[in-house]
Amino acid sequence: MNYDLILKEIQAEIQELFSQGKVADYIPALKNVNKNTFAMSLNLFDGKSHHIGQVDQKFSIQSISKVFTFSKALEIYGKTLYKRVGHEPSGNSFNSLVQLEHENGIPRNPFINAGAIVITDLLISRYNGNSFDKLLNFIQQISDSKNINFDQEVATSEKEHGYRNVALVNMMKSFGNIHNNTKEVIDTYFKLCSLRMNTKELSRAMLYLANHGIDPLSKKEFITSAQAKRINAVMLTCGHYDASGDFAFHVGLPGKSGVGGGIVAIIPNIMSICVYSPALNEKGNSLIGTKALELFTTKTGLSIF
Amino acid sequence: MNYDLILKEIQAEIQELFSQGKVADYIPALKNVNKNTFAMSLNLFDGKSHHIGQVDQKFSIQSISKVFTFSKALEIYGKTLYKRVGHEPSGNSFNSLVQLEHENGIPRNPFINAGAIVITDLLISRYNGNSFDKLLNFIQQISDSKNINFDQEVATSEKEHGYRNVALVNMMKSFGNIHNNTKEVIDTYFKLCSLRMNTKELSRAMLYLANHGIDPLSKKEFITSAQAKRINAVMLTCGHYDASGDFAFHVGLPGKSGVGGGIVAIIPNIMSICVYSPALNEKGNSLIGTKALELFTTKTGLSIF
Amino acid sequence: MNYDLILKEIQAEIQELFSQGKVADYIPALKNVNKNTFAMSLNLFDGKSHHIGQVDQKFSIQSISKVFTFSKALEIYGKTLYKRVGHEPSGNSFNSLVQLEHENGIPRNPFINAGAIVITDLLISRYNGNSFDKLLNFIQQISDSKNINFDQEVATSEKEHGYRNVALVNMMKSFGNIHNNTKEVIDTYFKLCSLRMNTKELSRAMLYLANHGIDPLSKKEFITSAQAKRINAVMLTCGHYDASGDFAFHVGLPGKSGVGGGIVAIIPNIMSICVYSPALNEKGNSLIGTKALELFTTKTGLSIF
Amino acid sequence: MNYDLILKEIQAEIQELFSQGKVADYIPALKNVNKNTFAMSLNLFDGKSHHIGQVDQKFSIQSISKVFTFSKALEIYGKTLYKRVGHEPSGNSFNSLVQLEHENGIPRNPFINAGAIVITDLLISRYNGNSFDKLLNFIQQISDSKNINFDQEVATSEKEHGYRNVALVNMMKSFGNIHNNTKEVIDTYFKLCSLRMNTKELSRAMLYLANHGIDPLSKKEFITSAQAKRINAVMLTCGHYDASGDFAFHVGLPGKSGVGGGIVAIIPNIMSICVYSPALNEKGNSLIGTKALELFTTKTGLSIF
Repeated sequence: MNYDLILKEIQAEIQELFSQGKVADYIPALKNVNKNTFAMSLNLFDGKSHHIGQVDQKFSIQSISKVFTFSKALEIYGKTLYKRVGHEPSGNSFNSLVQLEHENGIPRNPFINAGAIVITDLLISRYNGNSFDKLLNFIQQISDSKNINFDQEVATSEKEHGYRNVALVNMMKSFGNIHNNTKEVIDTYFKLCSLRMNTKELSRAMLYLANHGIDPLSKKEFITSAQAKRINAVMLTCGHYDASGDFAFHVGLPGKSGVGGGIVAIIPNIMSICVYSPALNEKGNSLIGTKALELFTTKTGLSIF
Repeated sequence: MNYDLILKEIQAEIQELFSQGKVADYIPALKNVNKNTFAMSLNLFDGKSHHIGQVDQKFSIQSISKVFTFSKALEIYGKTLYKRVGHEPSGNSFNSLVQLEHENGIPRNPFINAGAIVITDLLISRYNGNSFDKLLNFIQQISDSKNINFDQEVATSEKEHGYRNVALVNMMKSFGNIHNNTKEVIDTYFKLCSLRMNTKELSRAMLYLANHGIDPLSKKEFITSAQAKRINAVMLTCGHYDASGDFAFHVGLPGKSGVGGGIVAIIPNIMSICVYSPALNEKGNSLIGTKALELFTTKTGLSIF
Repeated sequence: MNYDLILKEIQAEIQELFSQGKVADYIPALKNVNKNTFAMSLNLFDGKSHHIGQVDQKFSIQSISKVFTFSKALEIYGKTLYKRVGHEPSGNSFNSLVQLEHENGIPRNPFINAGAIVITDLLISRYNGNSFDKLLNFIQQISDSKNINFDQEVATSEKEHGYRNVALVNMMKSFGNIHNNTKEVIDTYFKLCSLRMNTKELSRAMLYLANHGIDPLSKKEFITSAQAKRINAVMLTCGHYDASGDFAFHVGLPGKSGVGGGIVAIIPNIMSICVYSPALNEKGNSLIGTKALELFTTKTGLSIF
Repeated sequence: MNYDLILKEIQAEIQELFSQGKVADYIPALKNVNKNTFAMSLNLFDGKSHHIGQVDQKFSIQSISKVFTFSKALEIYGKTLYKRVGHEPSGNSFNSLVQLEHENGIPRNPFINAGAIVITDLLISRYNGNSFDKLLNFIQQISDSKNINFDQEVATSEKEHGYRNVALVNMMKSFGNIHNNTKEVIDTYFKLCSLRMNTKELSRAMLYLANHGIDPLSKKEFITSAQAKRINAVMLTCGHYDASGDFAFHVGLPGKSGVGGGIVAIIPNIMSICVYSPALNEKGNSLIGTKALELFTTKTGLSIF
């Protein structure tokens, strides 16, 4: 398939959508991005990659970090992980406290904020105060790039405006589902959300999930095949908050979006993908990113359905 | 792949589970089944099929009928269907009224009871009093079997004990989302749930969904390729009520279960499957059926993830 | 106190409010009333009564009937009644299904629709098919008027549009909290709601609740003193749906409103009151009726607080 | 009426209940109380008071402090207060986050934790960092006792275990309904909860609410008559969390309980009351305290209903 041509067609077709959507503005540090940016990267198993747009432009990965922390925690804890976080769609918005209260502080899945906060707590329990560095190291490894770090301004800004997330961590602590200091947990969570990467790095980083847990280039096994299958299933059913059904419906790929405008996705056994465009639709997912992926599966016929 | 051998292995491995689970007993007519029954059928695109167990044993298809009514309604109404029923996971049990109340009588998806009742209402609006016969005819056509009918005793029993479903249809009527007589709608819905089929017929009936809407044997196009893709996506995210995430997680296939003990599933571009065993797990899905499908995807490596 | 003067002042002060509020229009039969009507009646223990406005004008008593059915059921069943209906404020709108689902079909109190439907079911269990006549007879007795009946057009109209109430009765039946035929229960409930009375009759009918369960004129004891105290407490905390707190806050009297525009209230040991004006505020209670009662307690200083 | 005799009878009748109920144990500092304590005090308008039991025993007033902060905030802000906190029963437990989320961070009433936290925030806005001292001074004034202070151990313990309350204040901050620093607000709130008083002081402190806002002994007007009427109405409908209906039902007086085992109540125009006994019923209110008040209104006939 001529992926370069397909990417060019997609780039042309999404132009008319630049006027739509709205950049995340809940923290000042996220607002100052160029709304008219578009970038898309594909990585194949033979080492080839295809790119279009501003693929070197770094952006805040936000909730995409949840894929990497889930991977690492699953590698460490295995199935015992699921005693502290579920793997069902929530049917609610990403930071709802209602379900958490009804379900005794056990979040529905690792891709809503509460779930990722519990995952962060689990990693802190293992890494003893060194957790952010260890996770950054893991992300640098899978993306084959040393040039990744977090944005201090965004992390600070999240902390100053993230009262809802502070409410979540304290609520779970009251149910006994947070074992470490709430401040340390939430600070580490915010730092992970504020990591800056570009579509090249993110697409590369997802390759192991398209290939049963093994990076097809370095041959390193990051997680088991069974674990990769489960992470992909959870991405499909829960990766886009309460628009997960809609994403499965229109795009038909396991994926995860971030409020910074990035979306990662995989086509099992074939490739990994990352798309970036900062304006969001009313569900909080990249408007052009979602459309680009829908166009991609339609043009290539590569949906999993 | 030696499917016959794989089916034999599965049959052997599920034997020890016959002591577990519980047959649906909310209506007397469903209770009287042999708990130790197991049957599994596969249909391939070349006309070949593989079977094991009591594959001629008819059973109450219950919610599996929702796949066929959704197909037919989507063919008739196209995307306008989604004005009256969504395509998001509900995150709640199959007959919850809570979400319906918060969301103005628009059910989350066509696979929860409320959604299937709206679909029935849409079909009645089109077929003018002849809807059950028309739908039965459609199901006979896709399953290539004239020998299918509904169970009067089950339908009557559902009516006598289905107060929750009567509550659902009246609640939606109060929101204006039921256009026909509530009694006619609910009676037709109960008749469709009480259809009796065996795994041979059900597996055969699902073949068009594995093949982009076209029956690979008769070459007849029942729905468009885009519609088949969407039905499969909704089966994956919503096909097993509030265990949908769990089913995607363990089995990794688009599927739909019924409280009578049947589960249908498809592997896109490869085959359709039906499994039957009446004892249910605590989420209301066939316990052995779910396990058999998990074993099948593990043994064949044929999950979509 | 010069009650006639106070009533005149109130009548003068509410004139400017006739332009506000909205007559109930969920059934056609309720819409056709004169929005500019106002009537208020007081009954004292010495047999004296005071009236102003169109006090002979009959109107649909609607939920005010819940006070009388609660009284009768409490007389018959005593405390065992509370196994099937609670006595806590619901914090929700009058016909919510959410709470009912979370609380296994036990309604919060006898003054929300679900609670009154259970009360009707209890009375049918006792009266064997004769329940409406028995209750009508009780209401005629306490109001000292034979000239009371139900409005066939309203009752029929309620049945044709009352899908939400049909949903409620079926939901509770599914939980086992309705013992009789759902159709008989809901028909009787609708007939009781469609009774027509005027403020003279309704104020007179409430006198026993102001006097510890004993009609001060006929000396007949309808319920015990303890039962009267409890009914008054429930009227105060639950008598106005999710505006009960607001009514206690502004008026400070045990009372019960109906969507037909009537409100009954009592001042313990002193008097009973009924006010009528059909335009409703946004909470579904008579706008002018609520204001008139607030003016009355302010002018007389007769709040219970 | 011979109040001393009545208090003696009550003391005798509650003896058999000492084996029941459970002392609050969510913080260690509250656990160490003598379960078999009982004390009850009445204050009349002529300066007379009646006491029985360990009336000099200080205890943690906990949520009873909400009555005094509500009074002070209402005096300062008047009706504008109700833009930030409602006056409706919540129908939920005292620290639920669900309703808060559905209602945009506006708590239902000043007597649930969220509501009292908003009231604390309002007082901090006015007092500029001096709020606890100002409020302590007010409480010393109305109880005519300088010998009142907070318990440092309890306050610290609340802080260390009060994750749910920290969740509440952060959630409301995320909705913009907390204007000051969350840490300052919650620290002040916890200090107010940890005030230690005895039944003599608390009964004396409530006298102004029984007398239209004016202390009948010092003649000082703390709040207006209309404000006192409203606080009493809110105590009746919301003073006992989701057992408020039950308290109105059994006791029939405006009152407020604290998890430390105290309950204050008033009989309008007649007296104020405080009762103390630390073992709680399953709703979190003093088991013996509730029973003692029920006996008191039954024996004296002094319910407001």
